[in-house]
Amino acid sequence: MSPAPSPEKVSARAEAQRVRILDAARVCFSERGFHGASISAIAEVAGMSQGLIYRYFTNKAAIIRAITDEQREERREALAGIATCSELVEKLLEKIDAWRETGPGMTCEGGFDAALFLEVSAEATRDPDIAAVVTAQEPQIWVDFEALVQRSAEAAGKPLDAAALRRRTVVMRCLVDGLILCYVRDPAQDREVLRRSLQEAVTALCL
Amino acid sequence: MSPAPSPEKVSARAEAQRVRILDAARVCFSERGFHGASISAIAEVAGMSQGLIYRYFTNKAAIIRAITDEQREERREALAGIATCSELVEKLLEKIDAWRETGPGMTCEGGFDAALFLEVSAEATRDPDIAAVVTAQEPQIWVDFEALVQRSAEAAGKPLDAAALRRRTVVMRCLVDGLILCYVRDPAQDREVLRRSLQEAVTALCL
Repeated sequence: MSPAPSPEKVSARAEAQRVRILDAARVCFSERGFHGASISAIAEVAGMSQGLIYRYFTNKAAIIRAITDEQREERREALAGIATCSELVEKLLEKIDAWRETGPGMTCEGGFDAALFLEVSAEATRDPDIAAVVTAQEPQIWVDFEALVQRSAEAAGKPLDAAALRRRTVVMRCLVDGLILCYVRDPAQDREVLRRSLQEAVTALCL
Repeated sequence: MSPAPSPEKVSARAEAQRVRILDAARVCFSERGFHGASISAIAEVAGMSQGLIYRYFTNKAAIIRAITDEQREERREALAGIATCSELVEKLLEKIDAWRETGPGMTCEGGFDAALFLEVSAEATRDPDIAAVVTAQEPQIWVDFEALVQRSAEAAGKPLDAAALRRRTVVMRCLVDGLILCYVRDPAQDREVLRRSLQEAVTALCL
C-alpha cells in the first residue's frame, strides 16, 4: 500500500481544484450570464462532476463570493496605485477600451466582468444569499474609494473632513458605476467626450 | 350564425391581450429576473397559452422592447415636468423610497424596475436582439436628459453650448445611473447623505 499523501499535497490539490472551478465559472458567467450559467454548465467546462463542485462550493452564491473576494483584492491594489480621481478616470477609460476589444461578456484583465457586476447587483434585490455577498463587499469598497478621494483632495490642496469626504466619495462612486453602465448600454459612445465629461466633473468637484 | 365581430372589437381585444401579457411579464421579471422569467412562466401568470403569447411577441426581446417603449414615454413625461437637476435628484430619491417600500424586484409606480434595467443592460453585451432594443432607446434618453440639463443651466444663468451641454449631460446620466446602482447594492445607505452628496455635485457643476 502506498503511503497516504501528505497534508500539504492534499491542500495543494484542493486549491488547484478550486482555481479550476472558479476559472470555469468565470468563462460560463461571461458567456451566458449569471442566470444562464448553471452548476452543470460550470462542471462541464471545468471537466469535473457536479458532485465534486459541490464539495468546494455549496451554491452559485458561494462561487460569486469567491470571485468577488478575489476582485476586491485586485481592486484594492489597483486603487492604491492611483494618485488622483483624474488618474482614476483615465484608468477606467483604458479598462473600457480593453472591454471593447474583448467583446461579449467583456471581462477585462484582472477578471472584472462589467455585465456580471450589473447582474449580481440586480440579483441582490431578490436573492438573500447574493444580497449578503454584495453587502459584505461594500464596506471595503468604501474604504478603498475614500482613501483615493482623500489623496486626490490633498493633491488639489483641499483635504476633506470625514463627512465631506464621504459625500465626495458617494459622488465619485456614482460617476464610476454610472460610467460602466453608460458604456455597457452604448459601447459606440465617443470615448473623447466621455473623458472630457468626467474630467470636467472631477475638476468641478475640486478633486 | 352570428355576424363577424367589427374590426374595432378585434383590435380592442388584441390590445387587451397585449396589455395582459405585458402586465404578466412585468410581474415575472420583477419576481424572477430577466433570465428566470420564461415565456411559459409569463403564460401561466397571464392565464393564456404560450402559443397565444407568440402571436403577439416573437420572443422575450420583443416583450422587453414593448415594456421599455412604454417606460420611454413615462420617462419623457416625467423629465419634461422637472425644472432643474436639483429637482431631478429629489424625484430620484423619492423613487428610491418607493422601491424601498416595495421590496424585492423594486418596481416603482410608473413600472420602472431598477433590477430589470441593470439586467437588460448586462444582457445587451451578449444578446444582439437585446442590444438592438437598448441601442434604439438611447437617442431619446439623450434628448430628454439634454433638454433638462439645458433648462437647469439656464435657470442657473449659465446656458451651455452644444458640446458643453453634451458633456454635462454625460455627467448627469452617470450620476443618475450610478445612484440607482449604488442604491441597489446597498439599500440601507443613509438617504440624507445621498441627497447632500448629489446636490453638492449638481451645484459644483453649475446646474
